Amino acid sequence: MTTHDLVKQIHLKKSFLCIGLDTDLEKIPSHLLAAEDPIFEFNKAIIDATHHLCVAYKPNTAFYEAYGSKGWKSLEKTINYLNTKHPDIFTIADAKRGDIGNTSTRYAKAFFEDLAFDSITVAPYMGKDSVEPFLAFTDKHTILLALTSNEGAYDYQTKMVGGVELYKEVLRTSKTYANAENLMYVVGATKAVCLKAVREIVPNSFLLVPGIGAQGGNLEEVCRYGMNQQVGLLINSSRGIIYASNKKDFAEAAAKSARKLQEQMRSELEKP
Amino acid sequence: MTTHDLVKQIHLKKSFLCIGLDTDLEKIPSHLLAAEDPIFEFNKAIIDATHHLCVAYKPNTAFYEAYGSKGWKSLEKTINYLNTKHPDIFTIADAKRGDIGNTSTRYAKAFFEDLAFDSITVAPYMGKDSVEPFLAFTDKHTILLALTSNEGAYDYQTKMVGGVELYKEVLRTSKTYANAENLMYVVGATKAVCLKAVREIVPNSFLLVPGIGAQGGNLEEVCRYGMNQQVGLLINSSRGIIYASNKKDFAEAAAKSARKLQEQMRSELEKP
Repeated sequence: MTTHDLVKQIHLKKSFLCIGLDTDLEKIPSHLLAAEDPIFEFNKAIIDATHHLCVAYKPNTAFYEAYGSKGWKSLEKTINYLNTKHPDIFTIADAKRGDIGNTSTRYAKAFFEDLAFDSITVAPYMGKDSVEPFLAFTDKHTILLALTSNEGAYDYQTKMVGGVELYKEVLRTSKTYANAENLMYVVGATKAVCLKAVREIVPNSFLLVPGIGAQGGNLEEVCRYGMNQQVGLLINSSRGIIYASNKKDFAEAAAKSARKLQEQMRSELEKP
Repeated sequence: MTTHDLVKQIHLKKSFLCIGLDTDLEKIPSHLLAAEDPIFEFNKAIIDATHHLCVAYKPNTAFYEAYGSKGWKSLEKTINYLNTKHPDIFTIADAKRGDIGNTSTRYAKAFFEDLAFDSITVAPYMGKDSVEPFLAFTDKHTILLALTSNEGAYDYQTKMVGGVELYKEVLRTSKTYANAENLMYVVGATKAVCLKAVREIVPNSFLLVPGIGAQGGNLEEVCRYGMNQQVGLLINSSRGIIYASNKKDFAEAAAKSARKLQEQMRSELEKP
């Protein structure tokens, strides 16, 4: 999926919502546990109830790996369901991978070829030759961690490196990578005020913004500092939507919760 | 497995060799491809032929994920085989994970509980609260990336942060984490001279050293700068051992290649 198509979907749906599928057997409604694949059943119900309100889904691989090969199978079924039923939805493997060149290529194959995600999140610590193997897949998107939503972001990401914060150095140098035009960046909603500085470095890139809801980020602030001419934002909510209820009405409750964010997004998009 | 037991095994086997199981269907002998699970058959043959020459195995998860849930199943079979047949071997999931707290906990469960690895490699970019969930498993080891073996290590890891290189800052601050005594660190053999500085910060920790062989690192140099009173080194070789031959003699060839490194290690251990 191209960013052009993504922007089209955003305007069509009046939404730049990404729903995080962090599916945890301990949190889903207990009546689903009798199903053969409760994780997939839960995801399917959430997708069926919310796909018209969002433009992207983001399964975090940790929640699937925690259940071993069975969990990986649930991840496969989820992405296949999305790609078959909703090819207009942008899919993000929130995997935070990154390794030496030949190994990053294997990760890229895993997520871009085997699972056929549109994009993957990648950690920058190992530098250029750990990121470029993902960018070599030019019909896909590589979403580099810049400034994350957690407290630990202040440990290294905001430390000064040659007169500039590390996350800005990551943004700056990543622009020189081969096929850099296929980069997007993770910038946490909990650091919304930093989005202004981010936009000075990467004015045109899409930003994946986690941290709305459970983590305390503010949607209006994120839009004020982060939105560009192409919208340029995918704002993620996971727990706030998918665990809005843990009863039989979980899918409706998720839709209601997603609708609330979508309506805020609509009014942000309609601002002059 | 405790570090005390690991040190015992090192002296027993006169080896601090770690063998990287980066198993790639395009590189293994073609006669194995007819097996139901060629990846596991290959790993099993390599383990059977080399387990007396090494103290650790390190499957890199990228090579398993590239084959989807089937690949994850091969990883499960490999770790189960190691834990059942060779409980004295230290096992490393080379996964380079790291995420916000509740997500890192899921990764820790995946690799420490579901797969029952002794240790996992973890990326430091997201800071303290992304690493401590791994350290919360106090009978396990968390191997933090410090200075990696690739060229991209010079992009950020060696940049100055408050008067000190970033990788040293990572080492320094990690010592303040809860259960820091269960930390080990990745330091590439291609930067052996930096091991001296590493040892000034973490004199007692085990270091996992990749980059011998295919990547050009030198064993003797690594020992000169990196060895401590407890040996404190696990030196990894992957391709140089497991792909020593791609014919029917692949396991023997791997053993021969491992033996060569083990003999160099024996003489390093016997140095006065």
